[in-house]
Amino acid sequence: MNNRVKPSTLPGFMELLPAEQLLFNDLLDTIRENYEKFGFLPIDTPVLEKSEVLLAKGGGETEKQVYRFQKGDTDISMRFDLTVPLARYVAEHYNDLEFPFRRYHIGKVYRGERNQRGRFREFYQCDIDIIGNGTLSLYNDAEIPAVIYSTFKDLNIGDFIIRMNHRKLLNGYFQHLKISDFPSTLRILDKLDKIGWNKVETELEEAGLSIEVTQEIYKFVFLSGSVEEKLKALDSWNITDSLFQEGLQELKVIFSAMEAYGVPKENYTLDLTIARGLDYYTGIVYETFLKDYPDIGSICSGGRYENLAQYYTKQALPGVGISIGLSRLFFQLIDGNILTAKEKSPYEVLIIPMKGCEEASIKILQSLRESGVSSTIYSESGKMGKKFKYADALHVPYVIVIGEDELEKGEYSLRNMKTGEQEMLSLEKIKDCFLKETDV
Amino acid sequence: MNNRVKPSTLPGFMELLPAEQLLFNDLLDTIRENYEKFGFLPIDTPVLEKSEVLLAKGGGETEKQVYRFQKGDTDISMRFDLTVPLARYVAEHYNDLEFPFRRYHIGKVYRGERNQRGRFREFYQCDIDIIGNGTLSLYNDAEIPAVIYSTFKDLNIGDFIIRMNHRKLLNGYFQHLKISDFPSTLRILDKLDKIGWNKVETELEEAGLSIEVTQEIYKFVFLSGSVEEKLKALDSWNITDSLFQEGLQELKVIFSAMEAYGVPKENYTLDLTIARGLDYYTGIVYETFLKDYPDIGSICSGGRYENLAQYYTKQALPGVGISIGLSRLFFQLIDGNILTAKEKSPYEVLIIPMKGCEEASIKILQSLRESGVSSTIYSESGKMGKKFKYADALHVPYVIVIGEDELEKGEYSLRNMKTGEQEMLSLEKIKDCFLKETDV
Repeated sequence: MNNRVKPSTLPGFMELLPAEQLLFNDLLDTIRENYEKFGFLPIDTPVLEKSEVLLAKGGGETEKQVYRFQKGDTDISMRFDLTVPLARYVAEHYNDLEFPFRRYHIGKVYRGERNQRGRFREFYQCDIDIIGNGTLSLYNDAEIPAVIYSTFKDLNIGDFIIRMNHRKLLNGYFQHLKISDFPSTLRILDKLDKIGWNKVETELEEAGLSIEVTQEIYKFVFLSGSVEEKLKALDSWNITDSLFQEGLQELKVIFSAMEAYGVPKENYTLDLTIARGLDYYTGIVYETFLKDYPDIGSICSGGRYENLAQYYTKQALPGVGISIGLSRLFFQLIDGNILTAKEKSPYEVLIIPMKGCEEASIKILQSLRESGVSSTIYSESGKMGKKFKYADALHVPYVIVIGEDELEKGEYSLRNMKTGEQEMLSLEKIKDCFLKETDV
Repeated sequence: MNNRVKPSTLPGFMELLPAEQLLFNDLLDTIRENYEKFGFLPIDTPVLEKSEVLLAKGGGETEKQVYRFQKGDTDISMRFDLTVPLARYVAEHYNDLEFPFRRYHIGKVYRGERNQRGRFREFYQCDIDIIGNGTLSLYNDAEIPAVIYSTFKDLNIGDFIIRMNHRKLLNGYFQHLKISDFPSTLRILDKLDKIGWNKVETELEEAGLSIEVTQEIYKFVFLSGSVEEKLKALDSWNITDSLFQEGLQELKVIFSAMEAYGVPKENYTLDLTIARGLDYYTGIVYETFLKDYPDIGSICSGGRYENLAQYYTKQALPGVGISIGLSRLFFQLIDGNILTAKEKSPYEVLIIPMKGCEEASIKILQSLRESGVSSTIYSESGKMGKKFKYADALHVPYVIVIGEDELEKGEYSLRNMKTGEQEMLSLEKIKDCFLKETDV
């Protein structure tokens, strides 16, 4: 063969070596376990959808990034998130679902973004949403942070905080201040983290807001204290705008129920600076940050929306949900050395048979596996050093070399690959070692 | 909104309702657990690949079915199996992998096939392969049936048999018979199951084989008896063709090692009629059938190949592996009522709070969850009947209704939704019920 093709992946597509893949899968499994523990049902929609369905909303940056093509007469698009497929799913299967419909969905989505470090064109999203039929109680808005808390506690990637804000509160406050152009005010506020208050102030004034109004915004945004103190202060301002009051009352219900859910106070805050994403949401909004690595940005975001599937059905389907973009998060954790690919072995014991002892070794392997000791055999020919190197490279903690002597005696040398210690033990005693280890 | 789009999926794409999805995921998890138990490492390659890479082999029916498109200057294809991506992966990461490289890969693949019942354009493949560097011992060929056995035993979808044949044996036999045109002989033999021996015989003779040769083929293909008896008979024929003898000796090693692996004799057979797929393989070949539903065809197939990645590298990479096409299998199991969506609940307890008792109920919910009792709360307003209907529809086994009386007494009525029985119990006693249940 002379015309070999260079084996390579497309730029912007993440692919991991097995050691990192094991770690990635651990995170994925932890997320899934938590989503299931909270009673969310799995769905799995096609990666390909009809373009007219997937792009029913139309417009925006996203549409330009969509992988879209013709196959025969069909105009096909690859999903770019898991929300639009959820909307289509709920609208299509409306009569077969029970509401509130609590679903989780973990899957790959596709965006032909500009190629840049740490952004991927194929990435995992891990979503949960609770969809109501007509209405959806606020207690659901309180359960979502409980899921975030449980999930990130188990992910064990560092201390984190859930920052929450409320669209009604913010809009109500703007109404109260008689600000007419919400979107541009929000857009300026959104830069607060990046450019600081002084520049935001200048831009707000340039946009036509009076100094008084700008100062009122400052007072709101930089309100300090605990959640309780902030709520109390907002109450004390005696703002009569009904949207503002509605938002405030909702926040009280949600925070109170979050306490019942046992979400520790140090893991959430009412952050009135959050403007980003408020376009899409109509009530509570969540962002999640690693306390020691705020620069990573939000690692889990979401909120409450009024109408999931308006492009597909006349049914009113309010919902609340969150999404974890795991591929990007994983890249950042590895890139920032926050997480390092542990020396994780896919199994506990590697059996190395001497020539002629393969079958007898397979029987021992099989016996270990049946006892729940995950084991593998290295049955290739070659030098012993190469075989031990294999065990080392895979970080296998224990090796058993089996020759005729061992088989005759019925005792096998169990070698601890970290310490180099080895012990002659019967098969039963070897099993005991591992079963005891697991018990601890 | 007037311009609503009808929510629907593309034809030929499987999408499940949550109850079936739970069942599908059970199967997927069982397969994964088994692959991991046998020490296979996970990989996860991009769904999109460069067309020149993915289609390096070129030609054939498959290429016509590939979803292929341009994005900017890039010619992109969706993977149509997991074998080509494996070849690319191993060639690309050759220096970072340990050999034998034991990998599993569970993922979706895409084929724009003609639309027909039970065939899907997006489907799951669940593959394992063991790739050697230069050589790969025959003991690996014996371990694959051990994985198949363990997996299908755990899948619990009925009695099954692994049918095995060997390319060298068959080719050696054809050489011995001085048959020149192997491919067309194989193609005719392949129809045996469908059209029966008489028609196969006619076709073989029409293809130019003598009556004597055809009778020798009959003798070979219809050789009866146990694996041992067949091997003994083949031995006794004293065929001198070296390829035939090589195949025979390999089979002896493989079957003997399979016994060491504890694969029960009733779950495998040497089936000399298997011709299908022998094009791709160079040694052992496996097919797996449900004994009671042979018409479904092979539910798990694979074999040994000489060179995994010849289109990408000059490294000789022999391998052995299998694939389960789970989407198609799942469809057939459901369609044939071999498997029915069990009344599986996503959780054990649904808590229904009376109005005003939501927060106190959330605390109880949280306490149950922390004790490992999977529970969910129904916190929407509405009539009690509707709430019980929700529990019924989701097949939740137990419901606890919590009102002020219950909270005051600290005793809650645990209702068994199947029997209708209910019992007043303290929270601790409720936990005990479930923890005991799990212990059993």
